[in-house]
Amino acid sequence: MKIDDQTTYSSILCDIQSEIQPEFGKGKVANYIPALANVDPRKFGMAVCTIHGGEWLCGDATERFSIQSISKLFTLLLALQEVGADALWKRVGREPSGSAFNSLVLLEAEKGIPRNPFINAGALVVTDSLVEHFSDPIRHVLAWICELTGDNNIRVDDDVVRSEAACGFTNAAIANFLKAHGNLHAEVMPVLETYYQHCGLSMSCLDLARAVLPLANQGISIRTRNALMPSARARRINSLMLTCGLYEGVGNFAFRVGIPAKSGVGGGIVGVVPGKLTICVWSPELDEAGNSLVGTKALELFIGKTGLSIF
Amino acid sequence: MKIDDQTTYSSILCDIQSEIQPEFGKGKVANYIPALANVDPRKFGMAVCTIHGGEWLCGDATERFSIQSISKLFTLLLALQEVGADALWKRVGREPSGSAFNSLVLLEAEKGIPRNPFINAGALVVTDSLVEHFSDPIRHVLAWICELTGDNNIRVDDDVVRSEAACGFTNAAIANFLKAHGNLHAEVMPVLETYYQHCGLSMSCLDLARAVLPLANQGISIRTRNALMPSARARRINSLMLTCGLYEGVGNFAFRVGIPAKSGVGGGIVGVVPGKLTICVWSPELDEAGNSLVGTKALELFIGKTGLSIF
Amino acid sequence: MKIDDQTTYSSILCDIQSEIQPEFGKGKVANYIPALANVDPRKFGMAVCTIHGGEWLCGDATERFSIQSISKLFTLLLALQEVGADALWKRVGREPSGSAFNSLVLLEAEKGIPRNPFINAGALVVTDSLVEHFSDPIRHVLAWICELTGDNNIRVDDDVVRSEAACGFTNAAIANFLKAHGNLHAEVMPVLETYYQHCGLSMSCLDLARAVLPLANQGISIRTRNALMPSARARRINSLMLTCGLYEGVGNFAFRVGIPAKSGVGGGIVGVVPGKLTICVWSPELDEAGNSLVGTKALELFIGKTGLSIF
Amino acid sequence: MKIDDQTTYSSILCDIQSEIQPEFGKGKVANYIPALANVDPRKFGMAVCTIHGGEWLCGDATERFSIQSISKLFTLLLALQEVGADALWKRVGREPSGSAFNSLVLLEAEKGIPRNPFINAGALVVTDSLVEHFSDPIRHVLAWICELTGDNNIRVDDDVVRSEAACGFTNAAIANFLKAHGNLHAEVMPVLETYYQHCGLSMSCLDLARAVLPLANQGISIRTRNALMPSARARRINSLMLTCGLYEGVGNFAFRVGIPAKSGVGGGIVGVVPGKLTICVWSPELDEAGNSLVGTKALELFIGKTGLSIF
Repeated sequence: MKIDDQTTYSSILCDIQSEIQPEFGKGKVANYIPALANVDPRKFGMAVCTIHGGEWLCGDATERFSIQSISKLFTLLLALQEVGADALWKRVGREPSGSAFNSLVLLEAEKGIPRNPFINAGALVVTDSLVEHFSDPIRHVLAWICELTGDNNIRVDDDVVRSEAACGFTNAAIANFLKAHGNLHAEVMPVLETYYQHCGLSMSCLDLARAVLPLANQGISIRTRNALMPSARARRINSLMLTCGLYEGVGNFAFRVGIPAKSGVGGGIVGVVPGKLTICVWSPELDEAGNSLVGTKALELFIGKTGLSIF
Repeated sequence: MKIDDQTTYSSILCDIQSEIQPEFGKGKVANYIPALANVDPRKFGMAVCTIHGGEWLCGDATERFSIQSISKLFTLLLALQEVGADALWKRVGREPSGSAFNSLVLLEAEKGIPRNPFINAGALVVTDSLVEHFSDPIRHVLAWICELTGDNNIRVDDDVVRSEAACGFTNAAIANFLKAHGNLHAEVMPVLETYYQHCGLSMSCLDLARAVLPLANQGISIRTRNALMPSARARRINSLMLTCGLYEGVGNFAFRVGIPAKSGVGGGIVGVVPGKLTICVWSPELDEAGNSLVGTKALELFIGKTGLSIF
Repeated sequence: MKIDDQTTYSSILCDIQSEIQPEFGKGKVANYIPALANVDPRKFGMAVCTIHGGEWLCGDATERFSIQSISKLFTLLLALQEVGADALWKRVGREPSGSAFNSLVLLEAEKGIPRNPFINAGALVVTDSLVEHFSDPIRHVLAWICELTGDNNIRVDDDVVRSEAACGFTNAAIANFLKAHGNLHAEVMPVLETYYQHCGLSMSCLDLARAVLPLANQGISIRTRNALMPSARARRINSLMLTCGLYEGVGNFAFRVGIPAKSGVGGGIVGVVPGKLTICVWSPELDEAGNSLVGTKALELFIGKTGLSIF
Repeated sequence: MKIDDQTTYSSILCDIQSEIQPEFGKGKVANYIPALANVDPRKFGMAVCTIHGGEWLCGDATERFSIQSISKLFTLLLALQEVGADALWKRVGREPSGSAFNSLVLLEAEKGIPRNPFINAGALVVTDSLVEHFSDPIRHVLAWICELTGDNNIRVDDDVVRSEAACGFTNAAIANFLKAHGNLHAEVMPVLETYYQHCGLSMSCLDLARAVLPLANQGISIRTRNALMPSARARRINSLMLTCGLYEGVGNFAFRVGIPAKSGVGGGIVGVVPGKLTICVWSPELDEAGNSLVGTKALELFIGKTGLSIF
């Protein structure tokens, strides 16, 4: 199959959209905050962007949704760029955690060093490094996403932020615990606020697929031709997504789908096929591990149809 | 030996004070807040109060110190009295935890139900019940301690409270975690504030030995002859101190000393010999489990010399 | 109430037997081995022995049943006597475990040092010390029980032993794990065999109440007037029963009943009121923690009626 | 760089061999059994096999060593082939464990379902399925390896097997624990024996690189052109190696090296570059996670020089 053929991708996305219909209703929309619980569970979109500039869409691919934990990928890239890798990797590990994304158990056993930057504890450390480094961290996150996507209209959804702040007790527990172990340098409150802000970013499948395209292209923006990160970093972040990007479902996702990806409880999953393309899917119903149930199925179908597994 | 003989107790306390001298320097003063770290590590006091009204003192027995976790005993008694036992025991267990007083691990495994009211998580639930019940909870705690001791001059040390509030990140983590699991009804901040306030109470060995005397006397105040609690509750609280009152050192303390007791990281330990007397010792250096090292030795000597082990 | 009055105890036991009737059917007979599962769940017996030689019985108090974990008390006493306390307490702790009797979790965290001698891991270490010390350890266990009870007809039930050996995979796991951590000196198989043998001892309520009477009497046999252990050891073992003798139910048992006791999954619980008496109850239905449900209720009633709580 | 050029691979392996010299002495040879501890720590070999039939060697690439956990890959492939995937994946998960390869903690928490087939517990379940299925399982393992490699001279090292059996208490603990949870169908002893036998296989870097070549070639033997497994299975096993193949070091290995691989405590690591080649390195000194320290460095250099990261 000639995978860069525009017609082919269109029909593949189209086929997937009909094939995943029986999956709706099997998962549960994230209900811990009203702003997420109110999303229509039947929403479904996909976007594919190739490193040669091709873009394919289907369904609700241009509707913006709450990216939640997918934002951890952007803050990590920004922190590595601006704060530095050496400092950051002393404060957070790179190993899968084997436990839930919001667990405190390992954190206690390991004296405040989170297992990886994609569990909440690790992402809070990354956010802390941005809060420490920038006087207005969320502005820099937005500027960075603009640089990745070329779109300066991406915004934080304040309703989501307020909603999360109002009931984010587990994250407050984790942040305080990190502080108790000396692994939060800024004050707890501004770190949590910035964390809720970047989790509350609204982006569409197309926005997200564009934003991670440099990860498929050795760190280079296909839009500006600028190197947004060293190629080695792009590869490493891809590996980190593969081993840690899908919470407790990381092994099964790699087994079934076979590409680096990062998910969020808003129902988005963004994936990278190094050297080829990026893909983003959105469907709000989640499986038990907190990953989009229909989205995972859609990605499995896409990789099956295209043979683009990295394995 | 005629244990109610005044001369005897005087000489026993006197003997103990010289026998424990070699123990100084083996432990460590609690250093997590400046207000505790600055205490003279050589401080040592003991007080014994019998249910017949006898009182014996030695050393620094009338000097007030930070009672810290010993306050959990008073808040528990007050909550049982004013909020009610049935409601409280649904929210907190009565089993030894087998882990450190500030551990979050069991709390996560057990969905926010703390093992017992003497670990921090359990004590925060007790405090929450007081915050929920009273508009000015700390005033009621002080009134209750006045009722127990007959002394209306016992005060909270504001320096200690400020100091703990400023670095109480682990407690903030626990409180937020309880809130996340629905086991904190009031807001996090007032619960923490009230918690730091009662932990910051300053009392002397004599104050403390007097305060717990009803526990040795079937719940009855020897001063007013009022029943401050049902006799069954006095027994049960004694049993709870024995199984849960000394953090991770509870088994060894029962093995070596053999009476119900409650310790605090300020270096105080207050013990109860049901039907006979109460005893309080203060010495700031702590052992690895967080209990007064010299104080434990002093109590072991006291029980050895008097044969007052409940076993 | 004059608690040493024969008439009184008779009527108390009689009253208890009728009061506990509604409790039958609420628990579950241990079903992990056929030899235990086949016991009539309505069996119920109680025996009380005072240090003055009084003995009171009711129900099936002289019928022998499988004592299971109660045997851990006898092997511990024998090991302390014959192998020595210093050596033993280096290999096993004295703290409540906070987890199930057959858990491996803490054992892994603590590098093969069991929390206390009453969880399976700790009891296997005690048994190992006997296997290391004696060429025919079970013969010495029987001789020791004869010395405690004056009865040389107490026997191991070979059916129970075979049954447990055939499905004792968790114990085999624990023993191998101890061996891996260097805390099993003998070979795994003879330790397990001896362990199953002493767990398979058949004794009646009367046998058991007699056997532990020295623990209520400062270590002295009321039959022979011999000191079977130092009085300090008797006190310490009582304290250990109180903090560790009832698996995960130790705190609640102390709260409700308030005396040192040791239970077995055969449905027996033997308790000690220091300086006064011993009591044993047998009823095969177990609560969730693995302690006799009706037996616990019977003991609670007994202590309530006699006021013999040590607290 | 033209990576299929014979001259290039030769010089790359040669360069690596000199570049890794400073790494010797930083790790520790596995010392838990004498048969492994006696290996010369300076041994070093590499072998590369391409799907086009090219083979490149350096150092001790043809010397056989104890493959240990690498054998888990072969038994898994055989079990999937002969016992069936559906049955097997009900008994073992596909997620990274986040804890040590021989940990019992998660196994207890998850009721006997091991996290993945590459930790000891999971591999024992796989071995059990072979013991249940074949009357002479190790003969079938050898036949399977012969089919993979074309070499019928590969043998089990009986000294290693005896050595491991004599001190394999942790594995015996795990096997018994699985049996206690009903997830070991055969008897414990034959499962352990077969497990020690396949762990005791002696193979060289060249043997191993040849053996896994079908995993790089969509399941097809380049020697016989037979499909030894479906292409989807080859991909899935590659993904499983990437997420679970290097114990607690899996995330860092993916980050640094970036290819699916399986390691053994004998110092071997075999890796797969899907669609291109396989590579095996041997160097006995291990890092803290139990993976070959020099071997990991050598693979990192190889991937760096060739750009063959899958990310």
